[in-house]
Amino acid sequence: MTDPNFDLHAQLEADTVPLVDWPLARLLLMNDRRFPWIILVPRVSGASEIFDLPASARTVLWREVDAAASKLKAETRALKINIGALGNIVRQLHIHVVARNEGDGAWPGPVWGSGTRIPYEAGRLKALTTQFAAMLGSAPS
Amino acid sequence: MTDPNFDLHAQLEADTVPLVDWPLARLLLMNDRRFPWIILVPRVSGASEIFDLPASARTVLWREVDAAASKLKAETRALKINIGALGNIVRQLHIHVVARNEGDGAWPGPVWGSGTRIPYEAGRLKALTTQFAAMLGSAPS
Repeated sequence: MTDPNFDLHAQLEADTVPLVDWPLARLLLMNDRRFPWIILVPRVSGASEIFDLPASARTVLWREVDAAASKLKAETRALKINIGALGNIVRQLHIHVVARNEGDGAWPGPVWGSGTRIPYEAGRLKALTTQFAAMLGSAPS
Repeated sequence: MTDPNFDLHAQLEADTVPLVDWPLARLLLMNDRRFPWIILVPRVSGASEIFDLPASARTVLWREVDAAASKLKAETRALKINIGALGNIVRQLHIHVVARNEGDGAWPGPVWGSGTRIPYEAGRLKALTTQFAAMLGSAPS
């Protein structure tokens, strides 16, 4: 189902750190301390829209998105999870899963296009990467 | 799977016109002439997050979202489809499917929180409702 020659888009590579690979998607932590933010990238070359994927892969992708969303909400006790697949700027198919709370830096608007990414301090990034990789654990069944 | 007592949230009711009911979701046309924009609302009371739905309903919901996205792209020949489930303001679970093009009123940012909704002229709204209901047709299998 995945492509052994899959390459992550340079912009996603620059803005994130890898957390874990599930059967279809690579899960990334967005390096932006303003919001707990995970990105799922199906390891499939050339996909831009979700409906570019075969139906079997779409089913797996949404199962992985739902699982990541549920785990992120439980871990962060966020008020609301925001899910988005935009791709207006980075065309490689990727799905955002963001933990939102009243009073966060973009509330109640979307995080996309809101202000400028603020990277985590190095030690915090390392700790959060370990924490989120453990939170995500193995793939959803 | 759906709730016979389901009520559409007043804000969604005010901003949209109904297009068609698929097995799980009610599909609505956002009355905003800036963007071709469909909203899917699962006819389930009390759902806010997608993972509030049972797994069987989530599978149907995403299949319906993917079908709406694919049909909207084909119909509008849009450059990119944006999919979003936010719910920061209207907590009733709903999924946006929006046709985007370079140079539209929010490009390349998200449509959510961007400017103010501009309703269609009445005749245009009626024609587009008919066109989109026909485009959506029966439920995806």
